[in-house]
Amino acid sequence: MEENRELAEQLQSRLVDAGQRLAVAESSTGGLVGSTITDIPGSSNYFDRSLVTYSNEAKVDLLGVEETTLETVGAVSAETAQQMAEGVRAGADCTWGLSTTGIAGPAGGTEEKPVGTVFIGVAYNGAEKRVAATRYEFEGPRLDCKGQFTQQAFRDLLDAVESRLDDADS
Amino acid sequence: MEENRELAEQLQSRLVDAGQRLAVAESSTGGLVGSTITDIPGSSNYFDRSLVTYSNEAKVDLLGVEETTLETVGAVSAETAQQMAEGVRAGADCTWGLSTTGIAGPAGGTEEKPVGTVFIGVAYNGAEKRVAATRYEFEGPRLDCKGQFTQQAFRDLLDAVESRLDDADS
Repeated sequence: MEENRELAEQLQSRLVDAGQRLAVAESSTGGLVGSTITDIPGSSNYFDRSLVTYSNEAKVDLLGVEETTLETVGAVSAETAQQMAEGVRAGADCTWGLSTTGIAGPAGGTEEKPVGTVFIGVAYNGAEKRVAATRYEFEGPRLDCKGQFTQQAFRDLLDAVESRLDDADS
Repeated sequence: MEENRELAEQLQSRLVDAGQRLAVAESSTGGLVGSTITDIPGSSNYFDRSLVTYSNEAKVDLLGVEETTLETVGAVSAETAQQMAEGVRAGADCTWGLSTTGIAGPAGGTEEKPVGTVFIGVAYNGAEKRVAATRYEFEGPRLDCKGQFTQQAFRDLLDAVESRLDDADS
């Protein structure tokens, strides 16, 4: 989506100016966040890595997501999104961590978490330390969901970046 | 590219039938290999992870690429591609590992390794153990390069998978 490219360009501009780096952990977006970020020349100036952790083993081994979290509230949850964002951020020693975990469909939906559900996690370690996760629901086929999840991830991260940069200016 | 989706569908069919799993390490493709793989419903039945290691630190920390390799022959080299493919495969305990490392441009090209150069690594640990890397050169702007690198990665892996499965049948 052209809009996702524009959001990635804004993000690159903000983070390169601030001298802050980003690490990403993706589940339901499957690499689309990293691929959109790296469509922009110069993205290596702020983008360190994206870990596409499709299996639960990868989430535990690479991001430090707790097995008890996966067993109790599941991979598609605010707790997992927060642990993914903070895990990848800390492992890469970056200022920012971003994560996506959801259900892009067509299978895997439940009454409680229908297809189109996604949790976006944002972790920050700068002037203070913060980790947040937000739940969203989108509609549409698998590729539309992946695109919308990616767009929401960029929006949530950009909101947090602009909020933190405003704090730093004030 | 529609052709990349068809290659990913072929790959999924072959590996799910064979009961073999895949781990990917991406540099120049930036997540496009993982994203294309996960565009296909059911990809979680064979796809474990893709590590988008954009920084050299990520290649060393997550994939076990040797610092001396990066210092002597560089990140865009057959040696690095082989170490990335085998590193991600072994870390995920999968039968197959696939890697991409290249120069998508517009910056970063040299006379020896112009923009459009990519090394594709394939690692296998089944009936025997093999690691290979092949160099290719493509032309075009950044997004075309990423698409062509991804397509070549699927082709190299499919060739290796079909060759190994033929061996197993004979």
